[in-house]
Amino acid sequence: MKNKAITSRDIDFAQWYTDVVKAAKLADYSNVKGFVILEPNGYALWEKMQSILDKKLKETGHQNVYLPLLIPESLFAKESEMIEGFAPEVAWVTSGGQSKLEERLMIRPTSEALFSDYYASKVSSYRDLPKLYNQWANVVRWEKETRPFLRTREFLWQEGHTIHETAEEAKEETLKMLNIYKNFFEEYLAIPVVTGRKTEREKFAGAEYTYTVEALMYNGVALQSATSHYFGQKFSKAFGIKFTNRNSEDEFAYQTSWGATTRMIGGLIMVHSDDNGLILPPKIAPRQVVIVPIGEDNQVKETSMGILKKLTENGIIAFLDDSKKSPGFKFAEHEVNGIPIRIEIGARDLQNNIITLARRDTREKINISKDCDVVNEVNSLMNDIQNNLFAKAKERYQKQTYECHNLEEVKEVIETHPGFIKAMWCGDEACELKMKEIKGIKSRCILENCEHISTKCVACNKKAKQLVLWGIQY
Amino acid sequence: MKNKAITSRDIDFAQWYTDVVKAAKLADYSNVKGFVILEPNGYALWEKMQSILDKKLKETGHQNVYLPLLIPESLFAKESEMIEGFAPEVAWVTSGGQSKLEERLMIRPTSEALFSDYYASKVSSYRDLPKLYNQWANVVRWEKETRPFLRTREFLWQEGHTIHETAEEAKEETLKMLNIYKNFFEEYLAIPVVTGRKTEREKFAGAEYTYTVEALMYNGVALQSATSHYFGQKFSKAFGIKFTNRNSEDEFAYQTSWGATTRMIGGLIMVHSDDNGLILPPKIAPRQVVIVPIGEDNQVKETSMGILKKLTENGIIAFLDDSKKSPGFKFAEHEVNGIPIRIEIGARDLQNNIITLARRDTREKINISKDCDVVNEVNSLMNDIQNNLFAKAKERYQKQTYECHNLEEVKEVIETHPGFIKAMWCGDEACELKMKEIKGIKSRCILENCEHISTKCVACNKKAKQLVLWGIQY
Repeated sequence: MKNKAITSRDIDFAQWYTDVVKAAKLADYSNVKGFVILEPNGYALWEKMQSILDKKLKETGHQNVYLPLLIPESLFAKESEMIEGFAPEVAWVTSGGQSKLEERLMIRPTSEALFSDYYASKVSSYRDLPKLYNQWANVVRWEKETRPFLRTREFLWQEGHTIHETAEEAKEETLKMLNIYKNFFEEYLAIPVVTGRKTEREKFAGAEYTYTVEALMYNGVALQSATSHYFGQKFSKAFGIKFTNRNSEDEFAYQTSWGATTRMIGGLIMVHSDDNGLILPPKIAPRQVVIVPIGEDNQVKETSMGILKKLTENGIIAFLDDSKKSPGFKFAEHEVNGIPIRIEIGARDLQNNIITLARRDTREKINISKDCDVVNEVNSLMNDIQNNLFAKAKERYQKQTYECHNLEEVKEVIETHPGFIKAMWCGDEACELKMKEIKGIKSRCILENCEHISTKCVACNKKAKQLVLWGIQY
Repeated sequence: MKNKAITSRDIDFAQWYTDVVKAAKLADYSNVKGFVILEPNGYALWEKMQSILDKKLKETGHQNVYLPLLIPESLFAKESEMIEGFAPEVAWVTSGGQSKLEERLMIRPTSEALFSDYYASKVSSYRDLPKLYNQWANVVRWEKETRPFLRTREFLWQEGHTIHETAEEAKEETLKMLNIYKNFFEEYLAIPVVTGRKTEREKFAGAEYTYTVEALMYNGVALQSATSHYFGQKFSKAFGIKFTNRNSEDEFAYQTSWGATTRMIGGLIMVHSDDNGLILPPKIAPRQVVIVPIGEDNQVKETSMGILKKLTENGIIAFLDDSKKSPGFKFAEHEVNGIPIRIEIGARDLQNNIITLARRDTREKINISKDCDVVNEVNSLMNDIQNNLFAKAKERYQKQTYECHNLEEVKEVIETHPGFIKAMWCGDEACELKMKEIKGIKSRCILENCEHISTKCVACNKKAKQLVLWGIQY
C-alpha cells in the first residue's frame, strides 16, 4: 500500500521531496515569496536538533548570546571580502517608523560583523580570552530559487563565533566544532558524512579556510550540511579586536565561526525517507512510539495505558492515539509522519497474548508476548532502527562514490548515476571550472588523509596536488 | 560593603537599573541604534524563562511553529485597526538582493496577519479546530527611546495564536493563558501581579478585549508584563478563516493571541535587585549555587568537590569557582550576578566542622555542620529565598497601592510616592485623558471582582462604572 499523496522518489525526486514535506506536515509555503512556514512537525524536529546540539555546545564551554537582527551597511563593509560575497543576497531596511534611515541596515545574513564589533569592545587582555559565544537565530539571504529547508530566504540556525589568544587554539576550535557536527550527523541523524577543507574557490567569504560537512542524498546530490571556518586575524584586524598578550604586546585575536541550519531537516528527509513518507532515526524523532489501540475493548484500553505509562516512565517519548479515526487511517498517518515504532494492540491478539510492534524503516511487523519487557523490546528495536538507517545510508553512499581519472569518466558517472566523485586535482581554479561545466559539479572538499588515486589532475592531466571530493550540490 | 559600579537605587533609579544590567553582564549596548546585545547572563535567564513557559504551553496542548520574519504590507493591512496601530513603528524592507521590491515588506512587529493568513488556508471544518500554535521569535518595533529589556527596537518573545470553534472556547483560552502568565510571574519570578482587562483605549489594536498582567516596580512605576487578547471574529473575517460548523453552515473562527517578552527580565531586575546587583529567585536562576573554596587546602578541595557532586546529583544547578581570583573578588562577582546561594568552604572552618551558606537576598551568612544533609539545607534555603522575595515584593506592592477619590489625591500620591492607584471610573475616555495629564498616568486594568470604593468617577465626579487600577508606566 503506497501513500497516494506522495510521488515515487525514483520517478521524480524533486516532487517526492515536496510531497513528503507537505504530507508529513513539516513545512508549508507562505504567502511571502521565498519564505516557508515551519509547521508543528517540522518545528518539533528543529527543537529536537537544537536541544541535542545546544547541549554539546554547552558541554564544550560555549555560551549563548543574542545579537541584533539588523546591521548598518558600513559596519558590515569593514571586512571587504564578506561584503562582496554577501551583497547580492541581502535584504535592506531603508525606513523605520515614519522616516527614512540615514544609513540603510541589512537583515543579518550572518553575524561575523556584529560579533567582531562586540568583541572589539569587550576584550583587552589575554585574560579575557577565549570568548566562546553562540547564537540561535534567524537569518535572511535573498535567494532566487527556494525550496523548503534547503534554500529559503529566511532560515534558522546556530552561529558560533569564538576568539582566541593563539592561532593554534582557534584552529583546534575549528576542528573541534567540525567533529561535533560530524558526530551529530552520524550518531543522531544516522547520516554518514565526509568532512574536509573547502577549496579557495568554495570557502566562506572572509575565511582563511573552511571545513565542511558533506552528505550524499538518495538521488546522488551532495548537501553541504554544516561548516566551520577559521578566520585567523582577518576580522580582528578589520574590526580592531586587539588584546595585550602574555608578553605585554598588542596582538589581534584569532577567530572562528561555525554554523548548522534548518537545512539539516532537508538532509534527514532526503537520506532516509521513502514513498510512504518521512522516516526518522529514533534518536532525533520528536515522538518515538505511537500506541494504537484497536477497538473499544476494556482490556485493550488498559493494556495501552499501561504500556504508555511504562514507556514514558523509562524516558521513551510515546503517545497514545485513541482518536476516533480508523486503525488503517491512523497507521498511514503515523507512517507518513515517520514515527519510528507503532505499537498495535487489539482484542483478538491480546487473547493470544500478543502485541505487535511495527517498525517504520522496514515496515516489518513483530509480534511480542504482552508479558515481556516492553521497554526493553522498544529500546532494542529503536537501536536496531537507528543502526539500520545509518548502515543503509552508508552502504548507498559508498556505492554512489566513484573514482574518476578524466573528464570523460566524470561525465559518464554524472549522466548515468550521479553521486560523489573522487578525483585528483592540480589546485588550479581553471580545472574546478572545467568540472563545473559538467552539470555544475563543484568541489565538495579536499580529502586530506586519503591515499591519492593517481598523480594527474582529472581535468588538465598535469601534476595533481590533492585528492578532492566532487559532486552536484543543492 | 557596596558595589561601587552601581548607583544607589534610592538616589537614581534609572541609573541604578542601567548599572545593574551592565554590572551583572545581562545586556550591553550595540553599535546598532536602539538594539542591545543579550550577553551570556541575560540570555541564560531568557533560556530559563523559555524552558519553563514552553513546558507550560506544551502541557496545555500548544504546539510550536515558525512563521516568516517579513510581512507584505498589503497582507498586514487586511485588518485596518492593526495597521493603524503599528504603522508608526514598523521597519520596512524595500530591496532584496540587487533589486527594489515591488511591494515593501515589514519586519514583523507581531504576527496576527501571518497566522491568520496561514489558518485561512488550513481550516475548513470544525474538525480542524482548535489550532493552538505558538512561536518563539524576534520582533521589531521602531521605538524612539530605548532601554535594555524594557523597550528596544528588537526584542524576543513568544506569541501564541489560536483559533476555535466557538467564542466561549476562545474566551476560555484567553483567560487560561492569562492565568498561566500570572502563575509564572508569581511562582517562578516571585513577582506579585494584578490581572484584568484593559480599557478600550489601552487594549491591543484589533482586539475585542485585552487582558493584562501588571506588576509594580521598586520605584512605584507599573510594568505591563504580559498580555492575552480575545479577537472574536475580527481577524477571521478580515482574513477569511472560515469553517463548516456542526450544523453544516459556514462560520468564521474565534481567535486569541497572547505574548510575553524579554521585558520580563527588566521586571525581575526592578522588583528584586538591590545596590549590590542582581537578585534572582532560585526557581528562575540559571545557576542556583556557587561553591567557593578558600585556599589551596586538600580537604577544602575534596569537600568542595563532594558537595558539588551531591548538589548536582540532586538536580540543584551548582558550580565550583576555583579560579585564581581572591575570595573577596569572587564573593562580589557572584553577588552582582545574583547567584542565590554561595557556599564558602575554608580550611579553618572545616577544622571546626563548619561550612557557610551565604544567601544573596538578605546577604545573611548561615553556618552549618559539614556533616549535615547539604542538599536538604540548600533546598530549604532556596525555598526560603523564593518565598522571602515574593513576600517582600508583595508587601511593597500592597504598601504602594493607594485608593484615591479625586484628582487632587491622585496628584498628591504620584508626586510624593508613586505606585498603583485604585480609583473609580465612569467609563469615559475623557476622564482617562484627565488622569494622563498627571505625569502620564494610564489605566493599567479594570478590577472586575473588587468592591467599589465609591460611586463617583475620580475625574468627573459623575456616576462611576468600574474600579480601575492606574499608574505611571514603563
